[in-house]
Amino acid sequence: MARIVQKFGGTSVADVDRIKAVARRVKAEVDAGNQVAVVVSAMSGVTNQLVAHVDGVSSLYDAREYDVVVSSGEQVTSGLLALALQALGVSARSWLGWQIPVHTDGVHGKARIEGIENDELSRRMDGGEVVVMAGFQGLGPDNRITTLGRGGSDTSAVALAAALSAHRCDIYTDVDGVYTTDPRIVSKARKLNKITYEEMLEMASVGAKVLQTRSVEMAMKHGVRVEVRSSFADVRGTLVVDEDEIVEQELVSGIAYSRDEAKITLVQVADRPGVAASIFGPLSEASINVDMIVQNVSHGSGSARTDLTFTVAKTDLSRAVATLEERRDDLGFTALTADPDVVKISVIGVGMRSHAGVAQRMFQCLADKGINIQVISTSEIKVSVLVAEEYTELALRALHTAYGLDTE
Amino acid sequence: MARIVQKFGGTSVADVDRIKAVARRVKAEVDAGNQVAVVVSAMSGVTNQLVAHVDGVSSLYDAREYDVVVSSGEQVTSGLLALALQALGVSARSWLGWQIPVHTDGVHGKARIEGIENDELSRRMDGGEVVVMAGFQGLGPDNRITTLGRGGSDTSAVALAAALSAHRCDIYTDVDGVYTTDPRIVSKARKLNKITYEEMLEMASVGAKVLQTRSVEMAMKHGVRVEVRSSFADVRGTLVVDEDEIVEQELVSGIAYSRDEAKITLVQVADRPGVAASIFGPLSEASINVDMIVQNVSHGSGSARTDLTFTVAKTDLSRAVATLEERRDDLGFTALTADPDVVKISVIGVGMRSHAGVAQRMFQCLADKGINIQVISTSEIKVSVLVAEEYTELALRALHTAYGLDTE
Repeated sequence: MARIVQKFGGTSVADVDRIKAVARRVKAEVDAGNQVAVVVSAMSGVTNQLVAHVDGVSSLYDAREYDVVVSSGEQVTSGLLALALQALGVSARSWLGWQIPVHTDGVHGKARIEGIENDELSRRMDGGEVVVMAGFQGLGPDNRITTLGRGGSDTSAVALAAALSAHRCDIYTDVDGVYTTDPRIVSKARKLNKITYEEMLEMASVGAKVLQTRSVEMAMKHGVRVEVRSSFADVRGTLVVDEDEIVEQELVSGIAYSRDEAKITLVQVADRPGVAASIFGPLSEASINVDMIVQNVSHGSGSARTDLTFTVAKTDLSRAVATLEERRDDLGFTALTADPDVVKISVIGVGMRSHAGVAQRMFQCLADKGINIQVISTSEIKVSVLVAEEYTELALRALHTAYGLDTE
Repeated sequence: MARIVQKFGGTSVADVDRIKAVARRVKAEVDAGNQVAVVVSAMSGVTNQLVAHVDGVSSLYDAREYDVVVSSGEQVTSGLLALALQALGVSARSWLGWQIPVHTDGVHGKARIEGIENDELSRRMDGGEVVVMAGFQGLGPDNRITTLGRGGSDTSAVALAAALSAHRCDIYTDVDGVYTTDPRIVSKARKLNKITYEEMLEMASVGAKVLQTRSVEMAMKHGVRVEVRSSFADVRGTLVVDEDEIVEQELVSGIAYSRDEAKITLVQVADRPGVAASIFGPLSEASINVDMIVQNVSHGSGSARTDLTFTVAKTDLSRAVATLEERRDDLGFTALTADPDVVKISVIGVGMRSHAGVAQRMFQCLADKGINIQVISTSEIKVSVLVAEEYTELALRALHTAYGLDTE
């Protein structure tokens, strides 16, 4: 007998018929002798509708009231799934964030889970009852409902799995696993049987929107075995596990891309200590995150000026430009160029820790296709490049082949 | 400065624009120097949609899960109205049943309010904050959400007014007050300026669906001054008050009708002690409420048999008939007739306590129009008759004129 957590996303519970189908899936695990806790999202479309109501009422934003409104979607699904399970003869009840409680910090709208009380839930699961928990929600220190940000139900599920010491956490979604790259672009993309937490984290943060980043961090921290799999097909998905569990590690596991970034170049910035702080300080104060940064060497020996290139979220581009232009005199740059038509492409794999030449293969592959690299950044298990957006498909396909990821 | 409770029904908060209009109405009371608590229903249509989801998932019925699902509608409206008030510069926050808490008994789906904790709410209102309470919901002894039954937000509002010792409780709805009778049938119906609790209770229980019956009982018990008024027109409504406050009491205040009843007659029942109990006991066990009852005198002196006529809710008719037919041998009736095509018409007024002849005027009026009375029942302030449904409009208009209720 195992104890498992199953999480079903919005498309998996989109209507009454799909909720009944989810109930049958849960029952199958119960019939197999498992203890089951289920985490549900809102029925697809519902959260967007609720957010539209909030936007319609007020451009001001009290995140505490936003949370009251949008958390209702998961509440509805939890009650409906409990009823659907009961209709199949399965003992079940719904649990809202405040009832358990799921303790969070007080940052309404994007709260972090601090702990889930598990005694009562464990006792009921031991007694054969299925726990149906509303995802995405918790209880803040002000005794008010908090929500965890978009995709937060993934984090709810992983946190619950950790709290219950579950043997695994199955994330049911509308894709059947994690792919080597986006199969809509690269027809030869392969589904991965396993991926490490670290790789998944990089995949999640660079645009493969399968799991909320925080859920992966939490799974890694607590050693929760996560499986991403399809609600609509009964096939194995992708296991997200510790590196030790993967025997034959590929050099590169996947290639991710993100069109959400834009590039800013400051021309002829003074090349002296403190200049980076004076540039990125104001952006940080304006809550603008900077991702990739490259600083060129100084122009000549006597000029002591340099070009600085970096990327910000495309949605922050105009604010970032305005913030910098305001300080043009202080910063002393001679020109500012902004380019939203870029894509960040990342090659990810824990194998590259022990193998040289992974980055070189990327650069050579892109060069062979005549694709100019604008910015490069690297981490222990990732190499990212910024290229013109129009090369997205070409670059992804070429790299996928170059790293031997294509299906036969 | 006064402390008031305002309750807005589903049509009053049907969409974002109406919620903003409600916020302006609340602000007007705040600007007038009043302390305000607001109780809101779900946006109209939402509760029906949620109930349809529940029905779609399961014909079984765990009322605890039903409550989780349907209570979400009021939750959404409370958050949205708080946001709309804040957008107008009014300090406000939403309160859910479990946060206050609104303590109820454990009868999920039709719980009764047992008490509302008022310290925190009072303190915040003293500090100038508007309380926005989700109606229709409370917290049961099992720490789960309870709902109060259809129309329960009226009761939420009256209970809150009692708990806060409010000066009045304004019920905003889609009609502009309580009428002498249904104005859709009798064009000369008049809006009442005042009505007593007792009369309102009789009006509510015989089909004038302006206020939930329990809310009137609670208002009477705690002496809460209730005003029923329109959300859409800025005119005075109808005050529901203690009898002492009404100086010139009309003999009859209103004429109500209900098409929700059906008539059953048992022919030649044995006329002996215990027969009524043997008939109504099984109905009661089947949760079928019996309303009007008439027992004729025995046929002749030796037969010791009688006819028994009574009414049940139309929705219970077939179950009632089946229940009685099963016991035909025991009960010994010779025939059973069932008639769903009846209407109960009631003349209501506290003035009839001190004036004879009110019932007689009713009987004479109906006789003059050739309308046969099938069953009669009376209470201290009400006379009800059952007649064939086809006479509904004729009877209502004739009685309205006979009691001098017509507008000029």
